[in-house]
Amino acid sequence: MKLYTYFRSSAAYRVRIALNLKGIGYDAVPVHLLRNGGEQHHAAYRAVNPGELLPALDVDGTVLTQSLAIVEYLEETHPFMPLLPQDALGRARVRALAQTIACDTHPLTNLRVLQHLKAELGVSEEAKTTWYRHWLAEGMRMLEAQLADSADTGRFCHGDTPTLADCCLVPQVFNANRFGVDLAPYPTIAAIDAACAGIEAFQAAHPARQPDAE
Amino acid sequence: MKLYTYFRSSAAYRVRIALNLKGIGYDAVPVHLLRNGGEQHHAAYRAVNPGELLPALDVDGTVLTQSLAIVEYLEETHPFMPLLPQDALGRARVRALAQTIACDTHPLTNLRVLQHLKAELGVSEEAKTTWYRHWLAEGMRMLEAQLADSADTGRFCHGDTPTLADCCLVPQVFNANRFGVDLAPYPTIAAIDAACAGIEAFQAAHPARQPDAE
Repeated sequence: MKLYTYFRSSAAYRVRIALNLKGIGYDAVPVHLLRNGGEQHHAAYRAVNPGELLPALDVDGTVLTQSLAIVEYLEETHPFMPLLPQDALGRARVRALAQTIACDTHPLTNLRVLQHLKAELGVSEEAKTTWYRHWLAEGMRMLEAQLADSADTGRFCHGDTPTLADCCLVPQVFNANRFGVDLAPYPTIAAIDAACAGIEAFQAAHPARQPDAE
Repeated sequence: MKLYTYFRSSAAYRVRIALNLKGIGYDAVPVHLLRNGGEQHHAAYRAVNPGELLPALDVDGTVLTQSLAIVEYLEETHPFMPLLPQDALGRARVRALAQTIACDTHPLTNLRVLQHLKAELGVSEEAKTTWYRHWLAEGMRMLEAQLADSADTGRFCHGDTPTLADCCLVPQVFNANRFGVDLAPYPTIAAIDAACAGIEAFQAAHPARQPDAE
């Protein structure tokens, strides 16, 4: 497998965690999101993923896109270390937690949106940062409410083993820390992030440990 | 089952289509997104979904949120009329198509974002519409590229029966039409939308046919 990745891409980070948790080896193909106008827009990468977004996973010549779809594929084809619970209600909960991040939080704060705010709406650097922190904090609020209210939350988002939801939570917390969002109002999220940080699969997926880290 | 819904909510519309395709009866509980400051922010609905977003599906007292997670739950518990293919690669493709809409398109154009642009960034009505059309068109471009390039595309997004991807495509095209986005550059999407429009399950889920339609 070849994973098209960028060390700081939140969506690629999710897939790196899932691959590591399942012990699946892969070759990292770095795509630099900022250099030369963004390598994701170059013809070479457009031929891989016309959506011009990361990550993409090449499985024997078939390219999979969208981080959550990729993790579901890994789950179905590599059942070792399941990342979804056995019961349908539990699976629905884990997917909803993951989608709270992947649908309701991250898309509003990713690079192309920040670039568009600046280039097309002419917002200041300060207003851009305010936007980022607003949507990140709103996403954290929603996630914390779901986690803190539920008896299903354990050491991790769902019980005491990592799931797809934790694969999404950790990169989002990384972003929060990077942009100076205070985690004090989200104690459940912070505790789960700390539990994940103790696991080698999460550590090895960290941006700082990628071959393209700067 | 009780579905918390709003006739024009794109995410609720997806779930209505899935319920109809599978022939699952449900009670619609309308939540008006605009009236009285938005009923989704009222305490009564916050107790259902602290995320203050639609849809939510109450299954015997357990509340499920996030439209794609809800459809996956319906798929697992009601296998009749499968909305995902049998093979793992096909499932990955359908989920990626769905997520192109649910993660990369719709979140940028939903109500709370448009309200924020106006109230917090002070953008004009015109700039707000430009923003909407830009992200909708960008999402359509990505989706069209994935559909047009693939031999897996049939009468519907994946083969000749509707899937989760079609449940997402149709509400997105409804939004495009509503906001005057020209569909001419997206002929594959337009053809699939037309195929879906011939099916009663899609027709009955249309905003105009909901009990809370205006």
